[in-house]
Amino acid sequence: MSQTQWYWEDLEVGSVRELGSTTVTADEIKEFAQQFDPQPFHIDEAAGQRSIFGNLCASGWHTCALAMRLTVDNVLNDSSSMGSPGLESLRWLKPVYPGDTLSLVYTIVESRPLRKRADAGLVRAKWQMSNQNGETVMEMEGYGMFRRRNPADEAG
Amino acid sequence: MSQTQWYWEDLEVGSVRELGSTTVTADEIKEFAQQFDPQPFHIDEAAGQRSIFGNLCASGWHTCALAMRLTVDNVLNDSSSMGSPGLESLRWLKPVYPGDTLSLVYTIVESRPLRKRADAGLVRAKWQMSNQNGETVMEMEGYGMFRRRNPADEAG
Repeated sequence: MSQTQWYWEDLEVGSVRELGSTTVTADEIKEFAQQFDPQPFHIDEAAGQRSIFGNLCASGWHTCALAMRLTVDNVLNDSSSMGSPGLESLRWLKPVYPGDTLSLVYTIVESRPLRKRADAGLVRAKWQMSNQNGETVMEMEGYGMFRRRNPADEAG
Repeated sequence: MSQTQWYWEDLEVGSVRELGSTTVTADEIKEFAQQFDPQPFHIDEAAGQRSIFGNLCASGWHTCALAMRLTVDNVLNDSSSMGSPGLESLRWLKPVYPGDTLSLVYTIVESRPLRKRADAGLVRAKWQMSNQNGETVMEMEGYGMFRRRNPADEAG
């Protein structure tokens, strides 16, 4: 486990982090979907081609999971993250197809101390995931809890 | 693929469906998290015990994926589902621990025809997932698109 680099105080409102990119294959799309979302257009090329998506496409939950992996690798595992109570919104805007390369941008939009825990704070963040054509495929806004570098009772 | 049993018209506002249950193991929790959410408390028992969760616990995305599988097996694959544009909210209310048995209830809360497609309609649904102790672990509200049995231009 790496050293904690980012505490709650460091996740400043307005700060923008590029969290890298990942490429998804047809086999990965089908493997995820066979386990968790076996709708025809996620597990079978021919069914995907007949669907409104026009091709095999990834489960929206797979897209979220890929975004989470980029977030963990590039922010959370260097942070004091204590998990998340949830999301305010999630939009699957475009299908994710085999071979797509997805890039993730993470923006802090709000931050406040937690009332019930002097040692932690909450941030609201926006994730935007785009494909290699610059199209936003997924957008979500949600919360994260982080330990504070300086707990409230010390910081005053 | 099974016969279509549920069209948009059949997903009536106020209707409640019990979508069965699933039990998650420590190995499954770690396998999912190693791939998509490798935060210490999701991949290592000792780290989980040291965390605010008090034990190894499932990634929230894993919980969502398990809910999706129950939804596909018990509604969507017998329906005219055309996918989802997103969610309005998602709450991870309690940790999901190894051995937990999670039950899912699906309630239709709103329904309307799609303006841009005479052959499809939208529903807003609420998913509530509970553990074997009757505690709600996850709750979400989101949209689903379904083909209509009677397209608007035929139905008038």
